[in-house]
Amino acid sequence: MPVMFGPVMENLVVQLTRLPGVGSRTAHRLAFHLLRVPREEALALADAIRETKERIRACATCGNLTEGQTCEVCRDARRDRSIICVVEQAVDLVSIERTNQFRGLYHVLGGALSPLDGVDPDDLRIADLLRRVGNGGIEEVVLATSSTMTGEATASYLAEQLRGRVNITRPASGLPVGSDLEYADEVTLGRALSDRREM
Amino acid sequence: MPVMFGPVMENLVVQLTRLPGVGSRTAHRLAFHLLRVPREEALALADAIRETKERIRACATCGNLTEGQTCEVCRDARRDRSIICVVEQAVDLVSIERTNQFRGLYHVLGGALSPLDGVDPDDLRIADLLRRVGNGGIEEVVLATSSTMTGEATASYLAEQLRGRVNITRPASGLPVGSDLEYADEVTLGRALSDRREM
Repeated sequence: MPVMFGPVMENLVVQLTRLPGVGSRTAHRLAFHLLRVPREEALALADAIRETKERIRACATCGNLTEGQTCEVCRDARRDRSIICVVEQAVDLVSIERTNQFRGLYHVLGGALSPLDGVDPDDLRIADLLRRVGNGGIEEVVLATSSTMTGEATASYLAEQLRGRVNITRPASGLPVGSDLEYADEVTLGRALSDRREM
Repeated sequence: MPVMFGPVMENLVVQLTRLPGVGSRTAHRLAFHLLRVPREEALALADAIRETKERIRACATCGNLTEGQTCEVCRDARRDRSIICVVEQAVDLVSIERTNQFRGLYHVLGGALSPLDGVDPDDLRIADLLRRVGNGGIEEVVLATSSTMTGEATASYLAEQLRGRVNITRPASGLPVGSDLEYADEVTLGRALSDRREM
């Protein structure tokens, strides 16, 4: 926008525009919102950002986000300790928890293998995962990396590393529940057909 | 979401959810983004919010947002000082400036009249506007409040107050440029017809 409210306001808009999915128009809307609300409400957001940055770190065991040394999932005695679900990012863990279909532990890799972007096995929490499995007591590892090229490559690499030491599974691919066959892309539909199950 | 990353992260998500247009899913996406970026980038946003809240205030003349005593538009010697465009909020001023069709001054009311919500003339910068017009040198006041019920009521009220002292105008209502007649709502189309102009 034309500079119109001075550099302080301009800077807020610039910082907001760096957020994912926030363009210039949304950034302005958010900035004006923050100007309108009571001082306490705006500063509560500023403080929450600062506090999160200062106090949240990776769980020493699984790489999930936590305020302490060990995350809430790893500390929870009701979780099944014989099964580990491997995800790329902590945010994926939220999606899986929402399903209420998994009661085991997690392992957050911190990304997916992508040699072109310079992401090698050493850049992910892979050695930690192999160590956890090596310590014994794990019966199954669910490789829940994304269905993207890098996610699939990461799953293949991990399966190779873990082969013979533990059961290795991967979430099913197929048609989204409630979706129209007509609108399925051909790769998904092909996978759904080749993975068809008896009824 | 289930509490999963502890109260600090939870609080950031809550604060982000208070932003307009940000639901739980977007708030999580933003929170994870802020965790991923370098510390400096996240804190730059926190500081920008704080600084904006502390340093931005209303222009003493027109109510626009500014860091100083008087806003950039009021200070700009190239603006036409004989015409004032009245808007509800400073954000509306951005929209008007984007058109490059207005080179006069502004007056930001700080809202629209809405007796049901307890917004009376005393709650808006209306006395200031009448004083500016009373000081002389103003030839036209453009009432650019919204085409909503409260915006129209505010424009009517101001027109009444200013009648006979200055030329009073209002932006044209009608069909959006480039829009299909088929999709116009009946009120807009009706207004466009009754305000039709010769070609």
